[in-house]
Amino acid sequence: MTSAGFDDSGLLAPGWAGSPAASATGDRAFLQALLDAEAALARAQSALGLAPSQAAAAVTEAAVAARFDVRSLAERARAGGNPVIPLVADLTKAVGEEYGPYVHRGATSQDIMDTATMLVAVRTLDLVLADLGRTEAALARLAADHRDTAMPGRTLTQHAVPTTFGLKAAGWRSLTLDARDRIKAVRDSLPAQLGGAAGTLAAFTVYGAQDTQALTAAYAHELGLREPLLPWHTLRTPIADLAGCLAFAAGALGKTAADVLTLGRTEVAEVAEGSGGGSSAMPHKANPVRSTLIAAAARRAPQLAATLYGSLAAEDERPAGAWHAEWEPLRDLLRLVGGAARDAAELAEDLRVHTDAMREHLDLTHGLIVSERLSAELAPVLGRARAKTLLTELAKRTYSEGRPLAELLAEEPQLKEVSVAELTDPARYTGSAGALTDRALERR
Amino acid sequence: MTSAGFDDSGLLAPGWAGSPAASATGDRAFLQALLDAEAALARAQSALGLAPSQAAAAVTEAAVAARFDVRSLAERARAGGNPVIPLVADLTKAVGEEYGPYVHRGATSQDIMDTATMLVAVRTLDLVLADLGRTEAALARLAADHRDTAMPGRTLTQHAVPTTFGLKAAGWRSLTLDARDRIKAVRDSLPAQLGGAAGTLAAFTVYGAQDTQALTAAYAHELGLREPLLPWHTLRTPIADLAGCLAFAAGALGKTAADVLTLGRTEVAEVAEGSGGGSSAMPHKANPVRSTLIAAAARRAPQLAATLYGSLAAEDERPAGAWHAEWEPLRDLLRLVGGAARDAAELAEDLRVHTDAMREHLDLTHGLIVSERLSAELAPVLGRARAKTLLTELAKRTYSEGRPLAELLAEEPQLKEVSVAELTDPARYTGSAGALTDRALERR
Amino acid sequence: MTSAGFDDSGLLAPGWAGSPAASATGDRAFLQALLDAEAALARAQSALGLAPSQAAAAVTEAAVAARFDVRSLAERARAGGNPVIPLVADLTKAVGEEYGPYVHRGATSQDIMDTATMLVAVRTLDLVLADLGRTEAALARLAADHRDTAMPGRTLTQHAVPTTFGLKAAGWRSLTLDARDRIKAVRDSLPAQLGGAAGTLAAFTVYGAQDTQALTAAYAHELGLREPLLPWHTLRTPIADLAGCLAFAAGALGKTAADVLTLGRTEVAEVAEGSGGGSSAMPHKANPVRSTLIAAAARRAPQLAATLYGSLAAEDERPAGAWHAEWEPLRDLLRLVGGAARDAAELAEDLRVHTDAMREHLDLTHGLIVSERLSAELAPVLGRARAKTLLTELAKRTYSEGRPLAELLAEEPQLKEVSVAELTDPARYTGSAGALTDRALERR
Amino acid sequence: MTSAGFDDSGLLAPGWAGSPAASATGDRAFLQALLDAEAALARAQSALGLAPSQAAAAVTEAAVAARFDVRSLAERARAGGNPVIPLVADLTKAVGEEYGPYVHRGATSQDIMDTATMLVAVRTLDLVLADLGRTEAALARLAADHRDTAMPGRTLTQHAVPTTFGLKAAGWRSLTLDARDRIKAVRDSLPAQLGGAAGTLAAFTVYGAQDTQALTAAYAHELGLREPLLPWHTLRTPIADLAGCLAFAAGALGKTAADVLTLGRTEVAEVAEGSGGGSSAMPHKANPVRSTLIAAAARRAPQLAATLYGSLAAEDERPAGAWHAEWEPLRDLLRLVGGAARDAAELAEDLRVHTDAMREHLDLTHGLIVSERLSAELAPVLGRARAKTLLTELAKRTYSEGRPLAELLAEEPQLKEVSVAELTDPARYTGSAGALTDRALERR
Repeated sequence: MTSAGFDDSGLLAPGWAGSPAASATGDRAFLQALLDAEAALARAQSALGLAPSQAAAAVTEAAVAARFDVRSLAERARAGGNPVIPLVADLTKAVGEEYGPYVHRGATSQDIMDTATMLVAVRTLDLVLADLGRTEAALARLAADHRDTAMPGRTLTQHAVPTTFGLKAAGWRSLTLDARDRIKAVRDSLPAQLGGAAGTLAAFTVYGAQDTQALTAAYAHELGLREPLLPWHTLRTPIADLAGCLAFAAGALGKTAADVLTLGRTEVAEVAEGSGGGSSAMPHKANPVRSTLIAAAARRAPQLAATLYGSLAAEDERPAGAWHAEWEPLRDLLRLVGGAARDAAELAEDLRVHTDAMREHLDLTHGLIVSERLSAELAPVLGRARAKTLLTELAKRTYSEGRPLAELLAEEPQLKEVSVAELTDPARYTGSAGALTDRALERR
Repeated sequence: MTSAGFDDSGLLAPGWAGSPAASATGDRAFLQALLDAEAALARAQSALGLAPSQAAAAVTEAAVAARFDVRSLAERARAGGNPVIPLVADLTKAVGEEYGPYVHRGATSQDIMDTATMLVAVRTLDLVLADLGRTEAALARLAADHRDTAMPGRTLTQHAVPTTFGLKAAGWRSLTLDARDRIKAVRDSLPAQLGGAAGTLAAFTVYGAQDTQALTAAYAHELGLREPLLPWHTLRTPIADLAGCLAFAAGALGKTAADVLTLGRTEVAEVAEGSGGGSSAMPHKANPVRSTLIAAAARRAPQLAATLYGSLAAEDERPAGAWHAEWEPLRDLLRLVGGAARDAAELAEDLRVHTDAMREHLDLTHGLIVSERLSAELAPVLGRARAKTLLTELAKRTYSEGRPLAELLAEEPQLKEVSVAELTDPARYTGSAGALTDRALERR
Repeated sequence: MTSAGFDDSGLLAPGWAGSPAASATGDRAFLQALLDAEAALARAQSALGLAPSQAAAAVTEAAVAARFDVRSLAERARAGGNPVIPLVADLTKAVGEEYGPYVHRGATSQDIMDTATMLVAVRTLDLVLADLGRTEAALARLAADHRDTAMPGRTLTQHAVPTTFGLKAAGWRSLTLDARDRIKAVRDSLPAQLGGAAGTLAAFTVYGAQDTQALTAAYAHELGLREPLLPWHTLRTPIADLAGCLAFAAGALGKTAADVLTLGRTEVAEVAEGSGGGSSAMPHKANPVRSTLIAAAARRAPQLAATLYGSLAAEDERPAGAWHAEWEPLRDLLRLVGGAARDAAELAEDLRVHTDAMREHLDLTHGLIVSERLSAELAPVLGRARAKTLLTELAKRTYSEGRPLAELLAEEPQLKEVSVAELTDPARYTGSAGALTDRALERR
Repeated sequence: MTSAGFDDSGLLAPGWAGSPAASATGDRAFLQALLDAEAALARAQSALGLAPSQAAAAVTEAAVAARFDVRSLAERARAGGNPVIPLVADLTKAVGEEYGPYVHRGATSQDIMDTATMLVAVRTLDLVLADLGRTEAALARLAADHRDTAMPGRTLTQHAVPTTFGLKAAGWRSLTLDARDRIKAVRDSLPAQLGGAAGTLAAFTVYGAQDTQALTAAYAHELGLREPLLPWHTLRTPIADLAGCLAFAAGALGKTAADVLTLGRTEVAEVAEGSGGGSSAMPHKANPVRSTLIAAAARRAPQLAATLYGSLAAEDERPAGAWHAEWEPLRDLLRLVGGAARDAAELAEDLRVHTDAMREHLDLTHGLIVSERLSAELAPVLGRARAKTLLTELAKRTYSEGRPLAELLAEEPQLKEVSVAELTDPARYTGSAGALTDRALERR
């Protein structure tokens, strides 16, 4: 088997293969981010007079991913444990003898690796935010359109009391906005990394930097990243914050997916994905593929985040393992959420809502879906105890005789004055669902 | 074996047994929080004219944990899957015939369970915040006191370049403040839960509430919790936010613990816990027990948080399993972080710093700890290539001959003009460590 | 708040509170196991002539959990980081001046702690195995009774092709047996721990043991545990093996729960739990509580196991944190699986199967559930291309006209010779389901 | 950014990039395994007379990965949620009109996907087993060579009592053998998957199979996999078993890595990796890169396994998400363990052991490392109480005066008769370390 076998193109990842997030997180994108960090460092040093402007230009010009051999870098990364070491060698050579010495000057591998990770994160999160925007807009439309569409509310798998599809969609949107807010806040906080070998910036001072804070500021500015308060080689707040917002986003979208999967089961069929996926064996099937792939992402994200949270407890000025354990899980999280956001946008935009099925299912319990209401309303009329006894008795008869609760109630002499039809209409027992939906839609 | 066997008193939990957080999260504290939620609901309904004030008073008076049998509630919880169902029965009985009907009126189990969880969380987080405050204050003192105490910076377990203990302590404090900020923000955002059977608040309207938003606001106000935008029975943002800030805090404290464990090893002994724990077999041992227990918490927290993030993808209006899977892991997280914060405060306040050992270890590599500096400084004098060759050669001789690098350098004729003693003094190669420490200490 | 607040009685744990596994894993049971280990060590030493038989008798007599104060032990455990240290002090005092010196002689805390953990594990796993036995027996009956009960097979939430309830139950049983086999194998492999301070058994030799292997063997024999090949203070295979078999068992039972929850939804109602749990708000509800609690356990177990697997990488002869991080997660796993096995047994024994609903649902797709069969059977008659076109066309008409596929097919002139009724009968398209069920039931 | 960005070549994965396991698990290897499954199915059907032998030959001939476009398959996989659907289309076309209809006949995507996963697992595990064999052989040599090399035993980071490097290496080997045994057992149990659309094998019967068990057996035989008792579409024992043995292996190797990292710290330097990795900034550094990368794998594996255990609770005949969530984590585990086993073999074969440092460190506590022994030995001479007082007093003087314990003891008049030199020689207090090492090495 040749080394060609190493390449992955997403064959096992229908959830994110081919997505913008896939491109933004691929090896080539990561390589470019590493090079962007090196170039920004050279320019920052030049801006502060620590390097000639030609050096900065030369490094910037050479820092193009396409000129480097990713696979070779990957394999040579093994010797020192990270890809920056061979990359610095190749970049120095590419820059040439005169300005080569300015490549990576004063920096340590982790400065470049961490900074590149932040660049990749920012670039991917921007894609995610766009798809979350599409998702929430579509969900807002669904919520508004179905503000008053009654449907069964379900708890522990059983019909409980009525709710509305509008409130359900407003809830999905609310979680989507929570995800957006958390991602946006983290995205805007991500810092550049610059600390040198052990976080003291000492080498930069040897190379002439009198104000290392200014150097860090210039470097961060070149990259469009935040200036850190301290080098964060082992203060991994940015990584943990990413873990948190990405695990949150996967789970938030996973809630919508869980509901669509449930409501779309053959027996329920209250919603359907716009374009279901086919089957290799059964021509009639329309599978809820978008929801399935989002659900799969939601199952994986928490454990990936756990690995990242676990790396917070990093010993020394660079830990032996905790840092290395971050790279792939963080990328996996970015991809999974990137893919899930893409799928969520399509899911929300194309969702088919079958209001007739919702209406029909409200009667599945023969009226018992409003038993909570009847308990409350009949107590003043019949007395609390009698109301309870009557309802229990009628509930049994409802099932044994297959007759609607309303019909049985109407036969009760004591309830002649009561508007049974209204009391037992599930569509009139949706409480504050409409008002809650309105209020939720005011959130921007 | 009798059912007495059920009780746990923390025998397997030296990390949090006996801590304030343990009391604040125990079954009895949780029971009180459940009762507080029921009483607040009665008072809120009374405030809006939905119940007589005597009913609110009667419920409030009866809602005292000590009057209820926790174990019986725990065992009866099995039938319906949560402890609120038997509690409502017992509380209704305790309130008596007249006002009993006002107990839990319009609410669902989850309203009470979730609200109680938020109360327990707020109460425990306040304890955690106090201990984080003690921790950061002690770390600030350590950082200031040791602003210029040079010590080896270590990367991948090996001496790299010098750093200072002040910068290290400032980093520990920085993470502690990050934890504080994240916990504080979440603590202040935690909402009451009120939605009724399926989140529409419908039953409350039957009982007369014309403005359910006002009811929710009054309820939240009674409890000192935030008013939610929507009932969040399956919009689990508050739980996920707690997961995130608690996993963060455990890891942040875990970084300090990891460093203390490493720096306190018998061969390193640069720091020591103030009062080490004994051993059952070896009279001379002083174990770093505080750090050990914090480290254990940091190992467990990420996976507990993962379970909570996993519960975001909750189907329907109340999921069959995802909700129930939250209760114990969230309490475990609160306890672990509560215990770890207590241990961190003691650790920071009592830490012994052995500056002599730090100074001594700076020479362990015979001067090679400043090789980065020498590479940079000698290149202009000797030329880049010759400087590199010379250093490589002298590094070898340093080890084989056991002589300091400074001594060998001083014998080089070309370096007569160079102040070798200064160049090779590790304490003079700490870069911006002092300035970074100062800047970090400005953060409040 | 007094320290009474520490006690937990399972208020948040309806899944395992009150179960035999709860008693077998409570603090008092754990304390007894610690004492059993100490007593066994004294007896083993006596058996080898290293201690007087009166000492062994005195330690054994004193080693009764009820005589010790669990809460005090828990709180004093904090100083040294484990409960064995204060326990040895209390036990020594209880044994008295003469034979007190024989308590814990030569041992280290971890010897006692690990051994007690193994005892608790064995005792709890025996309870689990009994409940798995009940479960598989009940599932075997279900599988045999419903060997030929056709029902829809569902993939990605949609009807695919028919299957049988017998095959489904046989699958549940197969997983239950897999869990049983894995737990049984691990249960029978669990070793005693004896190594002394750092795993060399050195102190025992000082106290006169010439053959420490014989001592370990005698100790293990007293406890009914396996003799280890090596002291395993940091060779945590037994812990990891427990993690694996318990996570497996939780997930295996979780499969049954997932199916019962799905098949029991209001719209599906093909199965129902024997005695559903009530609701605090809705009198008519019968919730699938057993399945819900099993599902919650299945959600938590994998992450608890992950923490235990993570503790394998334990440095030195006793790690600072990895060991301490094992205690609570392992107990949690034992309890969760103990509770889930109890619930699974009840679930399986009481499950109600609604064969009429199954039969009815086979027609929900108007016959398309056998489209796979038709594709295959009609190709030889009509030609592959024509068969495909026809089926696609009729599938559309089936939905638009609301007529069964069989009816439409019967109108096709080319299919006059074909026995359409048989071809489209879902109950006749269950393939090898019966034979597979028979084969699966042969497994014991 | 073009879709070229999708490709990964291992840039973020120095732990496994370029390893045999990387090739064995890459997209191309997976594609070949998918094709192998399709070809085996055609041959099995031909062997039973269900397809012409020319069809089997045609499918087998076409089933060569290099002829297919992996990226296109990956992107088209999105529509149906798995790569088998587009692959069947492409393979059918490649086989041609005559025999195309025999491609995938009767099968469902999951049959092929699961079977390919098993093939990839078997092929990768064979590579892992080979590297574990190299590792244990090298560790056996180390254990034998250093059977009597005394060194400090360390617990909770502090010197406890002496141990030997032989016993430590024997422990590492013991865990390696445990990993080997668990992997071997699972490897030999992995079954082919064949069930058709919903696990009843119904389509195969339509295509003429009278004995589907024989078909499954023939298919499994073609593939060198085990014949399953039941189709396991939602009975995920093989996946969970893989999760368990792989998480175990990562942790087991992680123990060795943790020890090498600890023992190799600059201040300890009792061992060193044969060829340390360099640094981008510091010419003198020799980093323990092999251990670091193994440690990183050990940090990630448990959470990946947790995701797989979580997928056991799979609803229906094919779950919407749980199945899809398995693919990448299982491959990640195979790669991580494959890479870690490669690194472990090199680590063990090249490890440098510095016995002089070990010997030197035994004296770091001025003799207190044998305090356990002295407590035991002096009690009969001085009385238990006096012995304890004396040792405590001398321990203090040892540190304050910087004099060895042996020297101070020798000055005690009561101990004139005692051979202090022997009692305080750490090398003579290694207990049964030698015997334990011998016994452990007998295991094959």
